[in-house]
Amino acid sequence: MLPPEVREVLEELRAERIRGASWMARRGAEAFRILAELLEGEELKKALAELRRELPQVNPTMASLYNLSRFIPVTGDPLLVKSRVDEFLRLVDEAKNAIGNIGSELIDDGDTVITHSFSSAVFEVIRTAKARGKTFRVILTESAPDYEGIALANALEKEGIPFEVITDAQLGLFAERATLALVGADNVTRDGAVINKAGTYLLALACHEKGVPFYVAAESFKLHPELNSKDVEILERPYARQGHRVRNFLFDVTPWKYVRGIITELGILVPPRDI
Amino acid sequence: MLPPEVREVLEELRAERIRGASWMARRGAEAFRILAELLEGEELKKALAELRRELPQVNPTMASLYNLSRFIPVTGDPLLVKSRVDEFLRLVDEAKNAIGNIGSELIDDGDTVITHSFSSAVFEVIRTAKARGKTFRVILTESAPDYEGIALANALEKEGIPFEVITDAQLGLFAERATLALVGADNVTRDGAVINKAGTYLLALACHEKGVPFYVAAESFKLHPELNSKDVEILERPYARQGHRVRNFLFDVTPWKYVRGIITELGILVPPRDI
Repeated sequence: MLPPEVREVLEELRAERIRGASWMARRGAEAFRILAELLEGEELKKALAELRRELPQVNPTMASLYNLSRFIPVTGDPLLVKSRVDEFLRLVDEAKNAIGNIGSELIDDGDTVITHSFSSAVFEVIRTAKARGKTFRVILTESAPDYEGIALANALEKEGIPFEVITDAQLGLFAERATLALVGADNVTRDGAVINKAGTYLLALACHEKGVPFYVAAESFKLHPELNSKDVEILERPYARQGHRVRNFLFDVTPWKYVRGIITELGILVPPRDI
Repeated sequence: MLPPEVREVLEELRAERIRGASWMARRGAEAFRILAELLEGEELKKALAELRRELPQVNPTMASLYNLSRFIPVTGDPLLVKSRVDEFLRLVDEAKNAIGNIGSELIDDGDTVITHSFSSAVFEVIRTAKARGKTFRVILTESAPDYEGIALANALEKEGIPFEVITDAQLGLFAERATLALVGADNVTRDGAVINKAGTYLLALACHEKGVPFYVAAESFKLHPELNSKDVEILERPYARQGHRVRNFLFDVTPWKYVRGIITELGILVPPRDI
């Protein structure tokens, strides 16, 4: 039985509509810390095992929750749990900084960067490029039906980075105006597919067609060590419009062959040559 | 100077958000009839010339308004104008019926037809297939931001045709569940590009990738005799969300090579072999 304080975090994670896999992982790590503050010994051990099972189910499409759960040991020692949580959070922060540094090198003066949905890793790349004095603009989708794109637009506005918002359906029209595509990932599968907000695959196809390099920014904890793309379970959320149920799978699957590289804190992973 | 009764029709056409190029052409034809009822001689001649210039500008992306305007002669004889209007409307009706007959042959029992936006020509194909006893289902997009897809969903419901509505961004995810893609067109250019609701190009790319045959249903008055795809002027309408301007070009451009065929009343046009 998980304590109500932890249940609350799980509920919060289930209800979250705007923030991405990195934020989910950080918040999930806090759930483990709460356990370590409330329990110890056998009770802690049992609760940890339960949380490790339950947390990835909050969003089975997200590799970050799966990797976080693998990262925390099942132990009766609260101090060990807390130190692993701290280590995870430190790695998350370091990864984000490193991705900002590595990724910002891809942005040149005069570039137009196109993105879809709101990835904190992509935002870090863009923020870092701007901090380094590069001048460029961003094209972003509103990202229906939860409109994470509007949250990104607000963040870009704050940073003083020029941008244009488009509807999702115009991705094909605007891809050719971009010089670089940059998206996040909720999961990179063993066979190299990128699972990200539905619509990402369409952007990848359009970029492939128009010769625009398509990069993914993702911390290594978003790489799934076991899952293959055909086995990905894609989360669907209820959604309706004017009395009609509207299907609302959150993610789609972009095959490796459309990805120029995956920007991680360890460097840029590139597809094997035979794809 | 156009009489206020005709100005009213032009305003109505400019304000229209849901209905497509066929409806616009029919309503535009009525504007010519109104002129012929109100004026004659030199006055009629002048007004006709003006309407022929102005009507295509209501939506310069739509070939139907252009072709309608070419179809009506500049003459002082109201009877001649009315008979041409009647002929145009008759041709529109006949074309729609023929497209329904020809197109419905492409739908087989057990098919899943995917479409985007609300094309009256596509609806006619689907309606005819159903009337002929075929059993199939339809996947359609809600088509933000004007949600023509919901109007199509209502129409399918009335016909008893099973369907699923998806968000526009899920076109890539659902393309592979379809066995046939069927969209309308606002314009087919001289070089064979299909101009249709923004997002159509993304569907075409996904269908190409997944091996789903992609057909277009369009009356021959949607073929533009002079325009090339690079010269198409794409209409944009103002749109904003949460204080941000959102770009809203209504159409995108799908090159010939992704089109398996264009279903017209004259038969199915297929791309030249060298594309």
